[in-house]
Amino acid sequence: MNIDKLRETVRSIKDGSLSAEEGVEKLKGLPYENIDFARLDHHRALRKGFPEVVYAKGKTPEQLIKIIKKMSAKNPAVLITRLSYEKYKKLKEDIPKHLYEEEASSLVIGKYPSLNNFPAVPVITAGTSDISVAKEAGAILKATGNKVREIYDVGVSGVHRFLDVVETTRNSRVVIVIAGMDGVLPSVAGGLLSQPVIAVPTSTGYGANFDGLAPLLTMLNSCAPGVVTVNIDNGFGAGFAAAMINAL
Amino acid sequence: MNIDKLRETVRSIKDGSLSAEEGVEKLKGLPYENIDFARLDHHRALRKGFPEVVYAKGKTPEQLIKIIKKMSAKNPAVLITRLSYEKYKKLKEDIPKHLYEEEASSLVIGKYPSLNNFPAVPVITAGTSDISVAKEAGAILKATGNKVREIYDVGVSGVHRFLDVVETTRNSRVVIVIAGMDGVLPSVAGGLLSQPVIAVPTSTGYGANFDGLAPLLTMLNSCAPGVVTVNIDNGFGAGFAAAMINAL
Amino acid sequence: MNIDKLRETVRSIKDGSLSAEEGVEKLKGLPYENIDFARLDHHRALRKGFPEVVYAKGKTPEQLIKIIKKMSAKNPAVLITRLSYEKYKKLKEDIPKHLYEEEASSLVIGKYPSLNNFPAVPVITAGTSDISVAKEAGAILKATGNKVREIYDVGVSGVHRFLDVVETTRNSRVVIVIAGMDGVLPSVAGGLLSQPVIAVPTSTGYGANFDGLAPLLTMLNSCAPGVVTVNIDNGFGAGFAAAMINAL
Amino acid sequence: MNIDKLRETVRSIKDGSLSAEEGVEKLKGLPYENIDFARLDHHRALRKGFPEVVYAKGKTPEQLIKIIKKMSAKNPAVLITRLSYEKYKKLKEDIPKHLYEEEASSLVIGKYPSLNNFPAVPVITAGTSDISVAKEAGAILKATGNKVREIYDVGVSGVHRFLDVVETTRNSRVVIVIAGMDGVLPSVAGGLLSQPVIAVPTSTGYGANFDGLAPLLTMLNSCAPGVVTVNIDNGFGAGFAAAMINAL
Amino acid sequence: MNIDKLRETVRSIKDGSLSAEEGVEKLKGLPYENIDFARLDHHRALRKGFPEVVYAKGKTPEQLIKIIKKMSAKNPAVLITRLSYEKYKKLKEDIPKHLYEEEASSLVIGKYPSLNNFPAVPVITAGTSDISVAKEAGAILKATGNKVREIYDVGVSGVHRFLDVVETTRNSRVVIVIAGMDGVLPSVAGGLLSQPVIAVPTSTGYGANFDGLAPLLTMLNSCAPGVVTVNIDNGFGAGFAAAMINAL
Amino acid sequence: MNIDKLRETVRSIKDGSLSAEEGVEKLKGLPYENIDFARLDHHRALRKGFPEVVYAKGKTPEQLIKIIKKMSAKNPAVLITRLSYEKYKKLKEDIPKHLYEEEASSLVIGKYPSLNNFPAVPVITAGTSDISVAKEAGAILKATGNKVREIYDVGVSGVHRFLDVVETTRNSRVVIVIAGMDGVLPSVAGGLLSQPVIAVPTSTGYGANFDGLAPLLTMLNSCAPGVVTVNIDNGFGAGFAAAMINAL
Amino acid sequence: MNIDKLRETVRSIKDGSLSAEEGVEKLKGLPYENIDFARLDHHRALRKGFPEVVYAKGKTPEQLIKIIKKMSAKNPAVLITRLSYEKYKKLKEDIPKHLYEEEASSLVIGKYPSLNNFPAVPVITAGTSDISVAKEAGAILKATGNKVREIYDVGVSGVHRFLDVVETTRNSRVVIVIAGMDGVLPSVAGGLLSQPVIAVPTSTGYGANFDGLAPLLTMLNSCAPGVVTVNIDNGFGAGFAAAMINAL
Amino acid sequence: MNIDKLRETVRSIKDGSLSAEEGVEKLKGLPYENIDFARLDHHRALRKGFPEVVYAKGKTPEQLIKIIKKMSAKNPAVLITRLSYEKYKKLKEDIPKHLYEEEASSLVIGKYPSLNNFPAVPVITAGTSDISVAKEAGAILKATGNKVREIYDVGVSGVHRFLDVVETTRNSRVVIVIAGMDGVLPSVAGGLLSQPVIAVPTSTGYGANFDGLAPLLTMLNSCAPGVVTVNIDNGFGAGFAAAMINAL
Repeated sequence: MNIDKLRETVRSIKDGSLSAEEGVEKLKGLPYENIDFARLDHHRALRKGFPEVVYAKGKTPEQLIKIIKKMSAKNPAVLITRLSYEKYKKLKEDIPKHLYEEEASSLVIGKYPSLNNFPAVPVITAGTSDISVAKEAGAILKATGNKVREIYDVGVSGVHRFLDVVETTRNSRVVIVIAGMDGVLPSVAGGLLSQPVIAVPTSTGYGANFDGLAPLLTMLNSCAPGVVTVNIDNGFGAGFAAAMINAL
Repeated sequence: MNIDKLRETVRSIKDGSLSAEEGVEKLKGLPYENIDFARLDHHRALRKGFPEVVYAKGKTPEQLIKIIKKMSAKNPAVLITRLSYEKYKKLKEDIPKHLYEEEASSLVIGKYPSLNNFPAVPVITAGTSDISVAKEAGAILKATGNKVREIYDVGVSGVHRFLDVVETTRNSRVVIVIAGMDGVLPSVAGGLLSQPVIAVPTSTGYGANFDGLAPLLTMLNSCAPGVVTVNIDNGFGAGFAAAMINAL
Repeated sequence: MNIDKLRETVRSIKDGSLSAEEGVEKLKGLPYENIDFARLDHHRALRKGFPEVVYAKGKTPEQLIKIIKKMSAKNPAVLITRLSYEKYKKLKEDIPKHLYEEEASSLVIGKYPSLNNFPAVPVITAGTSDISVAKEAGAILKATGNKVREIYDVGVSGVHRFLDVVETTRNSRVVIVIAGMDGVLPSVAGGLLSQPVIAVPTSTGYGANFDGLAPLLTMLNSCAPGVVTVNIDNGFGAGFAAAMINAL
Repeated sequence: MNIDKLRETVRSIKDGSLSAEEGVEKLKGLPYENIDFARLDHHRALRKGFPEVVYAKGKTPEQLIKIIKKMSAKNPAVLITRLSYEKYKKLKEDIPKHLYEEEASSLVIGKYPSLNNFPAVPVITAGTSDISVAKEAGAILKATGNKVREIYDVGVSGVHRFLDVVETTRNSRVVIVIAGMDGVLPSVAGGLLSQPVIAVPTSTGYGANFDGLAPLLTMLNSCAPGVVTVNIDNGFGAGFAAAMINAL
Repeated sequence: MNIDKLRETVRSIKDGSLSAEEGVEKLKGLPYENIDFARLDHHRALRKGFPEVVYAKGKTPEQLIKIIKKMSAKNPAVLITRLSYEKYKKLKEDIPKHLYEEEASSLVIGKYPSLNNFPAVPVITAGTSDISVAKEAGAILKATGNKVREIYDVGVSGVHRFLDVVETTRNSRVVIVIAGMDGVLPSVAGGLLSQPVIAVPTSTGYGANFDGLAPLLTMLNSCAPGVVTVNIDNGFGAGFAAAMINAL
Repeated sequence: MNIDKLRETVRSIKDGSLSAEEGVEKLKGLPYENIDFARLDHHRALRKGFPEVVYAKGKTPEQLIKIIKKMSAKNPAVLITRLSYEKYKKLKEDIPKHLYEEEASSLVIGKYPSLNNFPAVPVITAGTSDISVAKEAGAILKATGNKVREIYDVGVSGVHRFLDVVETTRNSRVVIVIAGMDGVLPSVAGGLLSQPVIAVPTSTGYGANFDGLAPLLTMLNSCAPGVVTVNIDNGFGAGFAAAMINAL
Repeated sequence: MNIDKLRETVRSIKDGSLSAEEGVEKLKGLPYENIDFARLDHHRALRKGFPEVVYAKGKTPEQLIKIIKKMSAKNPAVLITRLSYEKYKKLKEDIPKHLYEEEASSLVIGKYPSLNNFPAVPVITAGTSDISVAKEAGAILKATGNKVREIYDVGVSGVHRFLDVVETTRNSRVVIVIAGMDGVLPSVAGGLLSQPVIAVPTSTGYGANFDGLAPLLTMLNSCAPGVVTVNIDNGFGAGFAAAMINAL
Repeated sequence: MNIDKLRETVRSIKDGSLSAEEGVEKLKGLPYENIDFARLDHHRALRKGFPEVVYAKGKTPEQLIKIIKKMSAKNPAVLITRLSYEKYKKLKEDIPKHLYEEEASSLVIGKYPSLNNFPAVPVITAGTSDISVAKEAGAILKATGNKVREIYDVGVSGVHRFLDVVETTRNSRVVIVIAGMDGVLPSVAGGLLSQPVIAVPTSTGYGANFDGLAPLLTMLNSCAPGVVTVNIDNGFGAGFAAAMINAL
């Protein structure tokens, strides 16, 4: 896929340093490793600029241990998300040096990159119950070398609580706003802030909230320009996109 | 149903001023009039404090003319809602003196009651496209003797636009807030105002708005206490409830 | 936001009792307290006429204890809703004098205001299974000084059961009607009562009830004027709105 | 399928009046006629007790003319439903003697059976806009020899309007109740009547009515025993089931 | 409501055997008993022809014991539905002589009426997993004196399994057909049977079954005339309606 | 992608018949043509065994003319689907020799392949209104050289109509079954036939049919093994899949 | 139903080897066995080419044991799906020789047929969490004598991972592609492969995945021709259809 | 809100250049203009970096003319979106010099800013029918000074069509990917590109597409990190967010 690599390979074929069959193999093959139940994509770091992230839900502790070992052998840092404390306890003895954050359900193997010089990314929640999603967003932000500014419980039931937040986020380049219930905070934020807002609906709420559908629709229909949305409870997705934007 | 009337009827039976059969008739019957395709409820004015309101959608011009004639013969004022201009043109020659408001799709036969002394009811819209719903709410408010303060296009994409609205509505007793798109304005209003807020979602929007479902859910899930909701585009319902509350 | 306070502040700046920087600080700031994970809004009592209410779901016992302590230090009474008995047991030793009502899942710290002189608010349920929602509505009503008249299990499968309720609610100013299953009671109530009706759908039911969606839609589509709706199982919201209306 | 016919056929095979191949043919075949685009089921009259009914929507005038001619040649009466006036005009010259009812969108070819002696079937609507569905139900009832009692516009926004209906339907054996909007009338009817109630939701309404979904859910969730439901606007289905029950 | 009783009461007022106040009381009151959390409707037996049925879900064992005692004191038989075995164990010591059927989750206090002479009602299921719903339908049928013919597991994945069922149900007057998954059995039954079919969707299935929504929609859209539908898993509603029809 | 082509290209690089830069170009490029607003995929015929098919909805007549000219220059036959008669009239003068089938909304440019020797594919519809979808399926089947056996209007409201269909389809290898309304025909077919059944829900119906959602869910939940489903009204998809299976 | 059997029976009636009553019985009856709660369909093997498969969910261990015994007495192999390990432990002692695969939740009694000579069926998953559905598909494929090629975790978040899969599946006749989350893999597969693709959405995911609804819709809307879909998590249905196609 | 302005105002109060009342007015007021039915927000340009954009749907030509005149008097450029050609014709005579783009339904009054030096933003569509949404995205991008690279019709039904797109977008900082039908293109793009991807679902499709719901869900559930989503058909929102990101 990489045009330079392709050029190099073609040159090697031409100059004979690769046999015809070797050339076919090299061109046909793509760089990932097959460990039976999971194909690891070591090149993602090159392609996307960050190490691959493992989504732990639906994977057994045994599968996770195997994946972690393979990946940490080739990457300075590996991030595991949606890892419950119960599952973490079953694998913690069998994996390399790591840091587990229960509130974020996140595990980091290896060491974080040094912090970059980009401005901190504000991660704002409407309520106390949205904090675990915020922590997940924070985990991926930190794993990619970004500073995080946590601003929690500033929902609009008293919109004035939000107004002074505007000042403190003035220097940032992208903002994450997380809300459940009616999900109106990103609309208010989008109307007042001059940065792009990544809106994250959460499943906090009851009744006609329908497990996060209500705030999801609110955010998708936001009249405030510059608001984009990710899946319900998807702190990881918001954090990753914010890291990509913050790195521009 | 009315205990006094019941007492009086029983007394009349007892003292013989009503025969047994007359008593049965009186007790069995309930006061409405049957005009073939529609049963008119003249006593509603007594029971609910306001004249009955006719919903014009799904009724033919001929049916409406008959209903209007019957009702206006017994009521000082009759209100018709959801009456399109096309349908209005087909019946306007055949009904008594009236006032038609195209923007509100409302028709009033007879004359409005004098304005009461209650404070004006603020009817606030988030956008320009919500005005027809606001006009419908205003029509029923005026038909029941209330003053209306129209405050249009103060949506939260710039939340600051809403903040000075707070001052101007300070003296009112109940507020109607109308919004389509993401429907966040009632949440913001509910957080800042000290009156009950009647929230009206509208079908303004597109895509994941789903014809007003998105703002409806936003309003039902509002975290701001004191916010109650009516059906999508139901300006009439909001106006009627506001009139009842304003009259307390 | 308060125009008097604003005037006073401006005057203080003018007469020098506030330095320029103090003026900026005062004008910029808004009066709430930040305790790390939750921003408490002590001024809500002034703004909305009632103390802030804490929604316990999704908060840990530790978080609740901290919030309760902060709030009860500055408010005569604090109300906690959706507090399960299990969670209550974990925090009851660590909070000031209080009253816990298991059926309402509600906790009151401090003492209730004296009862006001407004007429009692009827809280009516269609079935026995709707009582816990009614108790939540009652808790906020009582916490705001209102009398409550409990009228339970008068659903319309025998509509005659409802007819004599009409008499007993005659003097009230607002009525709460709570129903699951088909949710038809508020429509019947709205047709017979002359007060505004706050309709509360509950998640009681099965199959095509869809966890309260069916009664919610029934109530939103009610043809009876004067019916407004809150979220499924939202006894708190209904009680709060009723308290605001009853206080007019 | 008919055991007697089967017995007779077997006997004919046995006694030689049918050859082996004729027997196979007879047993294999089922009695319907193939007219290219529609397979007519002349035996339905025997099987279900009523002639087949043709659903006109989605069929061209040409297809309808062919079907009508085939069917009316073998049946004393044929009923066509959902036939718009526009389509009717295009075929009326080309079909045998008939009666078209625009309000019911129904066409009857041939002559109705004489009325049977069963009590009239009450067809009750909540509003004026539900009448066309009621007319469709009436058309199939009359086409099957039943008397119909039309009781229109008795919705529960004033429930008292419904109470005297109870008396007039006392002698009937089954009742059809049709309602749009919130669809609560069948629940009220089911609580007061001692007959089975066939509930028909209609698409009358707007907003959160969702084209009849709201009243459909209301009816399916009815707490009143003896209420069964058919599809939205399905006057035909209700009329047919009522005819079957009335004939018991 | 009963016109004869009304006549009698009026006569008693007239002839003085009732005082004015007694007359008012009698006319105003409706015959049910209030036991605090549940209003029992003893007259339902008269009005609907069957004793009231208690829905146990959402009621505590204590509430159920109180209700059962009150009701069984005035009725020869009381039926409790949706009573889990766990809840039954907590109340079985405290209630009068009874019969509990675990498979139907039903409890009968008192004794069943003698069987009537009406033909047995066929209760047909598509699969083995639908049997508990069928048992609930059977319980109410038996509680109202009807014979039940159980025909289980004849789903259309081999439609031939259903064809001989037609013969065995020939003499019945109404048929209950219960199906989950795709819910096609009632359509097939409706096409072949000459009796009205009460269709019951069940929550059996997975994925795009959406807890019974799929078979519910299938049944509501059935092209076979004479098919009416009740709520998902509502064996009780189907049994009750069938009993009413079978008694005609 | 094609390994042989890849081998050949590598060999050419090796033996010098391709320069390095030519090799890169060849390896990087993929064979399609860019005509500004539409990228045509001429190699699809090789890859999928059939020429590309153009979906006309949402394309202007001008765009279609350009696409058709480009494609018919390189392909013996091009198929256009969902082409309304109105749009067809606007382009018919400007395209090469063709055959337009209004009932199928399909246009074929060039000439059909000769019929293959595979058994005819039965295309079965439940009703008359489903025929246009069947015609679309037939158009792609014929465009790919298959014979089609049209069997229309055999829905299960009389399931016996379907039983003799079984005989006539005995020799086929795959069957397409199309149904709207309740969509039960594929389930019945799947239970009786020994071939794979491709089920196509159609938007025929009303009310709780929800534009084809009901039959779609019925088909997805079919208990009959061997039933697979395509999108609502997707005659093309069913025909294409059937052609691929029939060609095995 | 089988024309040869029918011919033979008619001949037997004719030549007297069957009495009239025996003929009626034989013709009327259809060959299944009634074991009270489940009607077993031994002829399915003949009709569909495979033994009946038992869906264990919703059946008690006792019911399963009875069904298994009956069926294994008449079939060389019986397959049980959706059998949890917990339920399996309760019946494993009481059934004949068998093989239980926990990952596939499948049980096979008796012995598998020898493998046929058809090419292996590729069963491809997008993620690790989809493997249990793949195993269920594999179980029915192996139970019907097919070879299975397991290709797991090749989702498109790196589409290049999928490209070399194309080579390895080149010789197969039908491909199963399983994906949760966004469900895009079958679309990508359908665009690149020349075989029919059976797409299986899984309930893997969270938030706006809605338990598999999102990937189901993705697959139904796939623009790639030759993609057909089965129910969410329906590995069995995909495997069965693939076996039927592979056997052509 | 602006801290500098606030400082300046406080200073002016302090030094007496503003009277107390003037200070209150200045602090209280927020800078927008009220033209009766629409409150224009001239400061948005300062706050968000771009001029306000007017959404034309639901506004009358007269309202638009008034708004345009007011706004163009204070802004160098004003952008109107969702302006149909029919509506445009009614106002084009009455507004200042402008450019109308029918394909984008967009109108620009005044002159575009000069192009900035940021890399062009790739706007990629899956199909031809998605182009109008792409044009709307392009209009806002150009109105904010960005270059646009249009890449249309590269959907994944042949995923190889997309692969060379990767090369051409290498230097961009953010990518817009637009798709209807199954909406898989953004997932594929997200897996291969190293920029943030703004995904736009469109309402192109039919049946289970549900007017764009299917691609919306696909995009929200995308497994590819760095994908964020906007509302269905919301080209404007995508373009605006892209402009904000591109300007970083």
